[in-house]
Amino acid sequence: MSKFVLTATDPCSRARAGILSTDHGEVHTPIFMPVGTVGSVKGVYHRDLKEDIGAEIILGNTYHLYLRPGLGILREAGGLHRFENWDRPILTDSGGFQVFSLAPIRKITPEGCHFASHIDGSKHLFTPENNVETQRIIGADIVMALDECCPGDADYRYAEKSLALTQDWLNRYVAAFDTTEPLYGYSQTMFPIIQGCVYPELRKRAVDHAMTLDNPNRGGYAIGGLAVGEPAEKMYEMLDLTCPLLPSGKPRYLMGVGTPENILEAIALGVDMFDCVMPTRNGRNGMLFTWNGIMNMRNRKWADDFSPIDPDGSSFVDRTYSKAYLRHLFVSGEMFAAMIASEHNLSFYLDLVREAGKHIEQGDFVSWKELMVKKLMTRL
Amino acid sequence: MSKFVLTATDPCSRARAGILSTDHGEVHTPIFMPVGTVGSVKGVYHRDLKEDIGAEIILGNTYHLYLRPGLGILREAGGLHRFENWDRPILTDSGGFQVFSLAPIRKITPEGCHFASHIDGSKHLFTPENNVETQRIIGADIVMALDECCPGDADYRYAEKSLALTQDWLNRYVAAFDTTEPLYGYSQTMFPIIQGCVYPELRKRAVDHAMTLDNPNRGGYAIGGLAVGEPAEKMYEMLDLTCPLLPSGKPRYLMGVGTPENILEAIALGVDMFDCVMPTRNGRNGMLFTWNGIMNMRNRKWADDFSPIDPDGSSFVDRTYSKAYLRHLFVSGEMFAAMIASEHNLSFYLDLVREAGKHIEQGDFVSWKELMVKKLMTRL
Repeated sequence: MSKFVLTATDPCSRARAGILSTDHGEVHTPIFMPVGTVGSVKGVYHRDLKEDIGAEIILGNTYHLYLRPGLGILREAGGLHRFENWDRPILTDSGGFQVFSLAPIRKITPEGCHFASHIDGSKHLFTPENNVETQRIIGADIVMALDECCPGDADYRYAEKSLALTQDWLNRYVAAFDTTEPLYGYSQTMFPIIQGCVYPELRKRAVDHAMTLDNPNRGGYAIGGLAVGEPAEKMYEMLDLTCPLLPSGKPRYLMGVGTPENILEAIALGVDMFDCVMPTRNGRNGMLFTWNGIMNMRNRKWADDFSPIDPDGSSFVDRTYSKAYLRHLFVSGEMFAAMIASEHNLSFYLDLVREAGKHIEQGDFVSWKELMVKKLMTRL
Repeated sequence: MSKFVLTATDPCSRARAGILSTDHGEVHTPIFMPVGTVGSVKGVYHRDLKEDIGAEIILGNTYHLYLRPGLGILREAGGLHRFENWDRPILTDSGGFQVFSLAPIRKITPEGCHFASHIDGSKHLFTPENNVETQRIIGADIVMALDECCPGDADYRYAEKSLALTQDWLNRYVAAFDTTEPLYGYSQTMFPIIQGCVYPELRKRAVDHAMTLDNPNRGGYAIGGLAVGEPAEKMYEMLDLTCPLLPSGKPRYLMGVGTPENILEAIALGVDMFDCVMPTRNGRNGMLFTWNGIMNMRNRKWADDFSPIDPDGSSFVDRTYSKAYLRHLFVSGEMFAAMIASEHNLSFYLDLVREAGKHIEQGDFVSWKELMVKKLMTRL
């Protein structure tokens, strides 16, 4: 069973700081969770995730892990923690989102989500019930309900129908979760996912329904179906509406978000947890996030800039390597470039949420955030 | 000026152990030098090269560095050490070998080596004189003469003509090197390259000629044009012939070699220094070298082997990750697989030469080597 304790709330916004306790250790919120898709945060050693980046929890993707290495291997290994040798908390999604974005063939029925593997075309079915079983075998500390992720531009009729399906699946997921046990001697908690697209009425309906299922096994609540094509203002509007409806004593996780600016704005609206591939994916493409803005490392302007990658950065790569060197590695197509950029960006994202937490505790989060969002998205 | 001191010689072979001193520190021979092609040992942090792998000297490729980042940037950076932030010794080749293997257009004339860049087709000329200047700007502790690398299956007439050109270039290289100064406040030494293909008479001729140019600026001698298509037995025959002709008080560097077995056999024949892309390149393709033999990590047999990658390995990756996990990363196409395999293989190669050095000092090198070569190339 996870526990969540609020340690500070901001007087001028809904921002909160807290501690989420799991059997694999504590997570200080607000927190960013690096994405370890198939059991590897791309290009980053677990040692460095802990010691350099200070990651307190990482993500695993159920869709990917289910297909490779597969449940047989994961069970034999004793779960994902032991398989990848990570002794801090892990969160897994349900795999629903990847099915929609990756599987070449997919069909939603009331029963569940039928799909063909993007690897070999083999056919599979995720139901709420077997998804609980799958996430028991993977063994994350926090598991997500199976949902349908509705596109950001869906019309009301589609969104309403989609939400009804998600609600039905949540009922079944919760029933299966609450009557099964974790497999490896430590506890697991589950987060329902609040859907409802960009429609206030549907978001409210989703929360109301989820609340009927609230019990100590619900370790927190995820907000899904945002940052999936709708304008950022719509996302903020939905968060502004949804967060106050959720219980204050449980953490709120905004799935798949986002830019540094998105994260600070969402923290102000009451979100506690984030994950996104942006720091690693954009890093591999040469984009670095810093306190002063965004750098495209392929830009010619860095070619003879021998200053440290990020004088304000806390990662060892920031002090060890120069902008000119990193630019050279990108231009030369060296995998080392992707490693350095991923390490830097994840370190920056963790610094960002840690710093946000400090300002929440100091009571000056909003003024700090206003200053920051202007700088963070500057193109350097 | 580098210095070389022999610390032990094996009673039953020509194997030697020694210490090569440079302004960036000592190198204990026999030594393996990881290849840092464009200023990056692919997939490996400099921190880990030092602290985990124990690399004492790394290689840079003049051809690659000359094209990217180019001499302007390298000079402005204060040389390659500062550019890539590596404070231990560096050795650079002349670039001749890469011209032959990579450049789409190349033409050898008495003047030098004309070539088109494999990156943008731009036209360039390496002469012995400008190659000295180039390697002064890169600033390695040890630089190589410009030579023509003759194919392993060349006929005698071609090999003889090629050697004559290499000798002429060596005369000019030495004249330029001995009348110019290093640029960055630390000394540089140069190694002539002994060519002569697989022809004993030509190898002897090459040594005789190089000896006429011997002086304290010659920090050692390289043996080139081996492991370029000829049978391994021919390579050993040439080493058996060449090493005794070279001065015992200077290190001997066998360029571009090789497998663990090749390295041990060459040490027995009197070679002190090695470099090869095999540990990193083969590592990226899933091949791991261990004391018990070679593992192809893509093999299905590792899928549920949760034992450490290499229980006898000294790298942190060997103890941190399992064979099953590493196999999963390779099968899933994760860059993390290449990182782990490169780290392991380089660590193994450095362990191999360190262990060879210990046995030379103990006086039981030959019996140890005989045991080892049988195991090292076993397919696990």
